[in-house]
Amino acid sequence: MIIIGEKINGTRKGVAEAIRNRDAEYIRELARVQAEGGAAYLDVNAGTVPEREPEDMVWLIKTIQEAVGDLPLCLDSANPAALKAGLAAVGRTPMINSVSGEQARIEGVLPLALANKTDLVILALDDKGIPESVEGRMQIVRKLVGLALDGGLAEENLHIDPLVTAISTGTENAMLTFGTIRAIKDEFPKAYITGGASNISFGMPLRPMINHYFMAMAIQAGLNSAIINPNDRELTGAMMTAELLMGQDKHCMNFTRAFRAGKIGRQTS
Amino acid sequence: MIIIGEKINGTRKGVAEAIRNRDAEYIRELARVQAEGGAAYLDVNAGTVPEREPEDMVWLIKTIQEAVGDLPLCLDSANPAALKAGLAAVGRTPMINSVSGEQARIEGVLPLALANKTDLVILALDDKGIPESVEGRMQIVRKLVGLALDGGLAEENLHIDPLVTAISTGTENAMLTFGTIRAIKDEFPKAYITGGASNISFGMPLRPMINHYFMAMAIQAGLNSAIINPNDRELTGAMMTAELLMGQDKHCMNFTRAFRAGKIGRQTS
Repeated sequence: MIIIGEKINGTRKGVAEAIRNRDAEYIRELARVQAEGGAAYLDVNAGTVPEREPEDMVWLIKTIQEAVGDLPLCLDSANPAALKAGLAAVGRTPMINSVSGEQARIEGVLPLALANKTDLVILALDDKGIPESVEGRMQIVRKLVGLALDGGLAEENLHIDPLVTAISTGTENAMLTFGTIRAIKDEFPKAYITGGASNISFGMPLRPMINHYFMAMAIQAGLNSAIINPNDRELTGAMMTAELLMGQDKHCMNFTRAFRAGKIGRQTS
Repeated sequence: MIIIGEKINGTRKGVAEAIRNRDAEYIRELARVQAEGGAAYLDVNAGTVPEREPEDMVWLIKTIQEAVGDLPLCLDSANPAALKAGLAAVGRTPMINSVSGEQARIEGVLPLALANKTDLVILALDDKGIPESVEGRMQIVRKLVGLALDGGLAEENLHIDPLVTAISTGTENAMLTFGTIRAIKDEFPKAYITGGASNISFGMPLRPMINHYFMAMAIQAGLNSAIINPNDRELTGAMMTAELLMGQDKHCMNFTRAFRAGKIGRQTS
């Protein structure tokens, strides 16, 4: 499971304040705890104010790299100027989050991923929104994977997000995600399949419980990358248990080691 | 989801004592709480002492029926004499738990199910034990389903148990169960697929967590019946969440109703 740590996101209040105040220690701490939590990449989102975003992105990257060295970053922006500035600042080839079927992203974001041979998140939506069928989502995915491969990326560089919509607005919405995951796995077996969990439970009670079982079931369908909070103890438990049960944890070593290290299971203290 | 309540089992200490002392209120209470917990059948196991089992079985059945009327029972025995006594005592056609590929059960138990047109649990094991491949388990299942259908039962009468073995003794053991579930669903789409969860976690830490995710993932594979404790709040949450996410809970009504009734979610009191 590839974990992309989601916490350094300028659309969140605490992070936005830290960026505005250049509170480096706040950002470094978020980087450190996510690295300790097992993140393979750290998402870096500098917020959505276009004129400040490039400068804020560079400051974030430098600050994060002070804390966690060359742990790869995931530059999260739709703004080509911010991505360009970020690409110049990183110490190591990053992931870009994200391209979609939206024309502005195909024109503005995709060329940067190709030119820098980055890893790349692909979203199954376009200018008309999120298709309500597996085949509709796959048409977008197929087009974008084709463009990425033609442009020199390898399938292994791609993290394809089937997208998750709320179960409260459609009884079949989780099945739609699971079905899209299986279709991606069939067609592009070397690509990673990524996503978040929390959208599934919008509008429902007991959201954490729904999110955790959704994550386990998405892993059963084929999810092997996730953009999440790596310090969510229950979610980590869900993921490690699902991998255990999928036969991906030889001799139960990862699970047992995480248990002994106190990383999974109810906290008793 | 068809829930078969497992609590009235004479191999458990408290129940064994209640049977020995003819403590009817203890048994009635176990019947009532399981019925309230949503059990569609109550398993009735009178213990394993052959000479007492028929009489104990009849007493259990009468006692349970005083508490929960004609809720169907699941007569759980390998002893033909106990099953015959039980079949004569029930007020309503029961389930029989269970036939397997073991010759003694084919000869001693199966004819009683056929003669009484009961529902029937089929276990994927035989005199050589539990096969370590999906195909091995399916060979036993195919033979037993064939005998049941030839004898006049309908596929809908059958609850087929793919069997669950400990993940601690084999990295692929959960996948073996999931694969057998999918194979049963493909070949016998009208049969129920049943089982327990707790065997999966023998020898592991955090057993309840493993059991709950296993149950959700088994439901994703096609499990639609379970022999469990219907009053296990977390397990009920796992099952209702899995059904929700599988698109089996229109407008999220069952989940929302269970939440409002306080039946799922962490207890805050």
